[in-house]
Amino acid sequence: MRSSVRSGEMAKLTQLIDNEVFRAYATYTAIVLLKMMLMSLITVYFRITRKAFVNPEDTASFGKGESAKKYLRTDTDVERVRRGHLNDLENIVPFLGIGLLYALSGPELYTALLHFRIFAGARIAHTFAYLIPLPQPCRGLSWAVGYAVTISMAYKVLKTVLYL
Amino acid sequence: MRSSVRSGEMAKLTQLIDNEVFRAYATYTAIVLLKMMLMSLITVYFRITRKAFVNPEDTASFGKGESAKKYLRTDTDVERVRRGHLNDLENIVPFLGIGLLYALSGPELYTALLHFRIFAGARIAHTFAYLIPLPQPCRGLSWAVGYAVTISMAYKVLKTVLYL
Amino acid sequence: MRSSVRSGEMAKLTQLIDNEVFRAYATYTAIVLLKMMLMSLITVYFRITRKAFVNPEDTASFGKGESAKKYLRTDTDVERVRRGHLNDLENIVPFLGIGLLYALSGPELYTALLHFRIFAGARIAHTFAYLIPLPQPCRGLSWAVGYAVTISMAYKVLKTVLYL
Repeated sequence: MRSSVRSGEMAKLTQLIDNEVFRAYATYTAIVLLKMMLMSLITVYFRITRKAFVNPEDTASFGKGESAKKYLRTDTDVERVRRGHLNDLENIVPFLGIGLLYALSGPELYTALLHFRIFAGARIAHTFAYLIPLPQPCRGLSWAVGYAVTISMAYKVLKTVLYL
Repeated sequence: MRSSVRSGEMAKLTQLIDNEVFRAYATYTAIVLLKMMLMSLITVYFRITRKAFVNPEDTASFGKGESAKKYLRTDTDVERVRRGHLNDLENIVPFLGIGLLYALSGPELYTALLHFRIFAGARIAHTFAYLIPLPQPCRGLSWAVGYAVTISMAYKVLKTVLYL
Repeated sequence: MRSSVRSGEMAKLTQLIDNEVFRAYATYTAIVLLKMMLMSLITVYFRITRKAFVNPEDTASFGKGESAKKYLRTDTDVERVRRGHLNDLENIVPFLGIGLLYALSGPELYTALLHFRIFAGARIAHTFAYLIPLPQPCRGLSWAVGYAVTISMAYKVLKTVLYL
């Protein structure tokens, strides 16, 4: 039934998503974005178990006045997850944009997979290194690996398309 | 005149933008990104009306020394808008990436519109819930709805394109 | 050799990247994302030179106990770079999404280049204005110019594709 409603245009779009490099980009992008979204759930989990909130309306269920106010505080575990989340934003946003352009710049499938897999692995390792936390340079190295992969893709993009 | 300068390649690009699912994605993405950008203006508005700044150069017009220094402070309203802005970033970035891949994965137009409309509605509701602020669970629920829609799109993307 | 492994699909993808407007989008997007990534390196540089860290594991190499603990502090230069980085995220994410849709909406090459160049120039000027720092309204103006360019592109996108 699905194919019966597909117009010619839809078929063309499907060609994009059927391209192996683009499928690999789509897979790893979905994975790292889902991983980043997981940080929200971990933040909520720590906020509730540590009873550490930032908005007064979030503590209303704990009672009124001073009894609720004491839960408006920062907690080191919550702040750690939030820093990990912000670091994800700072690094996954460039991957999202540069990775898309890279996937469209006609790289070899093998090379593209290598870039995407290393980036996703590095970001997952970074999250473990940040949240456990592992001693340095674990977190620093995993960050640097993801950073270097993104620079490598940006180099390929600019080499292929440069139009100033 | 515009059509006369269109090359064959441009026509192909236009086919992408003429696809109904892609047009819906483009429309709702533009809407949620503009809504996110609005948070910057609201922050500026509160910084000026509350006289709460963070950079010394921003308070220079209030005079020199102590008279200007007192405006380098945090304000609960400004911080609230900034938290809403960051929450937008954390949730709209995944929508931007996963939504694009979803739009290219050949969903039914009806299903796609449902996803995009609910996401945009949930994020607009989230902003009102955060800024008014409404009592919980208004903000929590609107956040969760947008989150669930993004997960649903990611599931469709991974089911369609998985290439590890 | 590279062309020999190109399938018909790959050729189609390449047509996208060969389109001049899309190439311009790819070039300026890569530039502003690399500029944003540079903020991470500048943060690391200031954290090390100012000896101002936030994670206890980052100061372990300075010794144990109180001797290391004193480096867990905020520094005005580090915080300034971090604010610039967050401002980049808040403004470059909308450019990433709206710029892509704009590039696909069939603008004139001249108009598109004008938008992309002004945005990239404004964000680079914004970084200098923030980090030096230059007196206001330098930072405010450079921010507003990038903001206005993004609004202009969003208007073109919505005018071309609106599908609610």
